[in-house]
Amino acid sequence: MQKIALTEITAVELRDRLASGALSAESLAGMYLELIAAREPQVQAWQWLDAEFVLAEARKLDQRRQSGAPIGPLHGLPIAVKDVIDTAGIPTENGTVLDAGRVPADDAELIGRLKAAGALIMGKTVTAELAFLHPGKTRNPVNPEHTPGGSSSGSAAAVAAGMVPLAVGTQTGGSIIRPAAYCGTVGFKPTFGCISRTGVLKQSPSLDTIGVFARTVEDAGLLADVLFGHDLVDTATIPRPFPRLLATASSEVPAKPVFAFVRTPFWDQAEPEMQQALEELVDFLGEQCFEVPLDGMFADSAAARQRINIAEMAKNFHHYEKRGVEALSSEMRAAMDAGNKVPARDYLSALDLPAILDSGLNEVFERCDAILTPATTGAAPATLDSTGNSIFNGLWTLCGNPCVTLPVFDSENGLPMGVQLVGRRFQDGRLLRTARWLSDRIANPDGS
Amino acid sequence: MQKIALTEITAVELRDRLASGALSAESLAGMYLELIAAREPQVQAWQWLDAEFVLAEARKLDQRRQSGAPIGPLHGLPIAVKDVIDTAGIPTENGTVLDAGRVPADDAELIGRLKAAGALIMGKTVTAELAFLHPGKTRNPVNPEHTPGGSSSGSAAAVAAGMVPLAVGTQTGGSIIRPAAYCGTVGFKPTFGCISRTGVLKQSPSLDTIGVFARTVEDAGLLADVLFGHDLVDTATIPRPFPRLLATASSEVPAKPVFAFVRTPFWDQAEPEMQQALEELVDFLGEQCFEVPLDGMFADSAAARQRINIAEMAKNFHHYEKRGVEALSSEMRAAMDAGNKVPARDYLSALDLPAILDSGLNEVFERCDAILTPATTGAAPATLDSTGNSIFNGLWTLCGNPCVTLPVFDSENGLPMGVQLVGRRFQDGRLLRTARWLSDRIANPDGS
Repeated sequence: MQKIALTEITAVELRDRLASGALSAESLAGMYLELIAAREPQVQAWQWLDAEFVLAEARKLDQRRQSGAPIGPLHGLPIAVKDVIDTAGIPTENGTVLDAGRVPADDAELIGRLKAAGALIMGKTVTAELAFLHPGKTRNPVNPEHTPGGSSSGSAAAVAAGMVPLAVGTQTGGSIIRPAAYCGTVGFKPTFGCISRTGVLKQSPSLDTIGVFARTVEDAGLLADVLFGHDLVDTATIPRPFPRLLATASSEVPAKPVFAFVRTPFWDQAEPEMQQALEELVDFLGEQCFEVPLDGMFADSAAARQRINIAEMAKNFHHYEKRGVEALSSEMRAAMDAGNKVPARDYLSALDLPAILDSGLNEVFERCDAILTPATTGAAPATLDSTGNSIFNGLWTLCGNPCVTLPVFDSENGLPMGVQLVGRRFQDGRLLRTARWLSDRIANPDGS
Repeated sequence: MQKIALTEITAVELRDRLASGALSAESLAGMYLELIAAREPQVQAWQWLDAEFVLAEARKLDQRRQSGAPIGPLHGLPIAVKDVIDTAGIPTENGTVLDAGRVPADDAELIGRLKAAGALIMGKTVTAELAFLHPGKTRNPVNPEHTPGGSSSGSAAAVAAGMVPLAVGTQTGGSIIRPAAYCGTVGFKPTFGCISRTGVLKQSPSLDTIGVFARTVEDAGLLADVLFGHDLVDTATIPRPFPRLLATASSEVPAKPVFAFVRTPFWDQAEPEMQQALEELVDFLGEQCFEVPLDGMFADSAAARQRINIAEMAKNFHHYEKRGVEALSSEMRAAMDAGNKVPARDYLSALDLPAILDSGLNEVFERCDAILTPATTGAAPATLDSTGNSIFNGLWTLCGNPCVTLPVFDSENGLPMGVQLVGRRFQDGRLLRTARWLSDRIANPDGS
C-alpha cells in the first residue's frame, strides 16, 4: 500500500479513495495510528485511543464495503470526538475525575449520525474540564510551550498535528474557533440549532453548539453535512431544510463576495499584530470590503453571554458540586458560585439580547456575504495554565451566527493566527462558500 | 326575525344558521346586545363594548356573505376576547390602569385567525390585573356576591350569562378552568404550544396558554379549531398536524372511554362536597373508571409552577414596576418582590420538572382516555376580593396537558362546580371526544 502524505491530503480526497476502494479503511487507520504514535507524546491530544479497537472497526467497515452493502458519505474516514460527547461502550469522561471510568450506554445522537455515515470513530480527544476553562493535558502542536486553546483542545490539536483529518468539538464561549485558530486549523461553528446536542455534556443549553475541525473549508462541510439535522429530543434543532454544505462550499461564488470588517467593541483587546493582520487583509480585499462599527448594545454581549453561561452551568453542574466539589478546579468553583447568585430575572433579560442584536446584524448581512473579524486576540499565549481569551467569540455564540476561522495569518513567534468569518444565521452554506473563496484568494493573491 | 333562545342554542347551530343565511350576523349581534344590556349591569363582564361598532362589523360580514365571497368557519359568530389579547384599534388595557387608554396598532396572531374565519369580535372582557390574581369588576353571573374566578373572569362570566356564545381567555395557573367551573361553563385549555401567544400579554411564557369558553364541548372545539396553528414568532408552537377538534369531539367514541380518577396530592384542599361529587361520579362510571395515585414529585408541582411564574413575571412586568409600582396591587407587588429573588438555578431546575412528571403521566394515559379530577377546590367562594384557589389547575398548566371542565356538579349553595378532564399532551381531539361522551352520559344516565 502506497504511503499517503496525511498532513497534506484532504478529507474529501480520502473519502473518494475510500469509496472507490483504492484505499482501505484499515490501511488508512494504520497510517494515522503511526502518525499518532509519533506525535502524541508531545501533543497529548487523546483522552482515549485504542489502536486494536480502531483497526477492528476499520476492518468491519472494509468488510461492509466488500460485501456490496451501501456505504455512507464518510465511509472509513477517521473522526476524533471531543470527550464530552457520549460514545456507547467507550469512556466519556468530560474532562473531570468525577467522571473517571464513566462509560455511556448510548451514543450521542451525532455519533449515531457519524456511524450511519460510515465514519470511523478514532478516539476521544482531550477537553478542558467540563468544556469550560480549566485546561487538560494537551499542548499546542506548533509549539508545546503554548496553549492549544480550549475547551476543544484535543480535537483542534489532533487535526492541526495531522493525527486525524476531521474532528468534532463544542463551543459555548469560544471553544471551537479559538483552539482552531491557536493550533492553525479550520474551525467551523455552525448556526445554533443545526446539530443535535442529545447525549452531549450539557453545560449551558442556550449556548452549547456543536462544531467541527478540518484542514480545509470543504472538509468541514463534508463532516458537517452528516451532522446537521433535526432531533426531536433537542428542541433547539428546528425542522427545516438543511443546506448541502460541501456542495455549496465547493461551488463557484455567484459574484465576488463582499465582506464587512467588524472590529467589535472588543478591538482594543486584540494584540497589535492581530489588528495589523486584519487591517492588511481589509486593504488586500479593497472595494470588496467595507467597515461596519458594532457598538452600543453589542458591548453588552460579553456580560450577557457570561451571565447565561454561568447561571445555566450552576444548574446543570450542580450534581458535580454535590458529588465532589473539591475535585473541581478553582476556575469552575468560582464560576459556579457566581452562577448560583444570578437572579432569574437578570438571566431572562440576558436571553432577550440575542434577538435584539440579531436585527442589527441582519442589517449588516443585507449588505455583505460575511463579517470579517479576529478569531482571537492574537496567537496562542505561552502558557499551559489558561486556554486563552475568547472575547472575539462570545458575541457570535450568543447570537447563534455561523463562524469559520481560517489559519491565514502568522504571528511573529511562528504561531498561527486566524481570521474569523461570520455569516447570517442559517446561511451556513453561503458562509462556507465565502470562506472557501477567501482561502483560495489568499493562497493565490494574483489569481483572478 | 324570529327570536332565538340564546342561552340554549349552541354555537354550532348558530354557525349553521349564519352560514345558510337563515340568520344574519347583524340580527344575531342585536339579540346578544339586548341580552348584554339586560345582564351586564349585574355581571360586569365587559371591559370594552361598543354596540354601534359591533353592529357595523356585523353588517360588513353580512355584506361579505351576500356578495358571494367565501365565508369562514366562524362567519358572523360573536366572540368575546379577554382584555390581555391585542386588538388593533380597540383598547387593550391588560387589567391595569398603567395601560389605560392603550390601543394596539396590531392584532394578536389569534385575532387575525378569528377575523380570517369570519368571527365577529364582540368586545373585550374583564381580566384580573395583568392576568394574575387581583380581581377586576366582574361578578359571578349565578350569584353576584361570589367571585367569577379569574383571571379570565369576564370571558367566563359572559359565556355563562349567555351574553356571547364563545370567548377566548388565557391560563397561566388556573385562569380558564377555574372561572369556567365557578361560572358554570365549559372551559378548554388546550395542550401548551397549540395556540400562538404573539400579541398576548406575556406574563410567564413557559406557562401562558390560550384557551376557550363555550357552553358545550363541541362549541369549544369549533372555536379552538380556528385558533390552533403554528406561528413562527411564538416558538412554543411547533409545526405539527393539528387535530380536527370539532369533528373529533362530535364523533362516536370507538369504545367506551376509560377514566383514571386522580385525587392529586392536593385532595385534602378540596371541600367535602367536591370530594363527594367526584367520588359519586367515579361510582357512576363503575368499571370504566379506576383510581391512580399521583404523589411523590407531583406534590412539587405547585411550588415549581409558582417559582417559574413569579420569576418570569418579575422579568416581564419589570417595565410596569418602573412605570408605576404604586399602581400595582399588593398581591402583584408581593409576587414581583418574591420573583425578583428567585435564583436562576432554582428557576431552571423547576423548568425540568414537567418532563419528569410527563413520563409519569404518560404511563397513566397508556391505560385511560382521560384523567378525572376536580376543576377547583369547590364552588366559587362568597367573596369579590379573591378569584379563588387554583391548586387543582397548576399541575396541568405546568405539564402542558389539555384540560376541559364540565359544569356537571351542583353545590349546596346553588352554584355550579366542575369536573376536570385531563388528556395526554397533543391528544386534544381525543380529550374533547371523551369529554363530550361524559357530558352526554351524565345528561342521559339511563342511555346506552
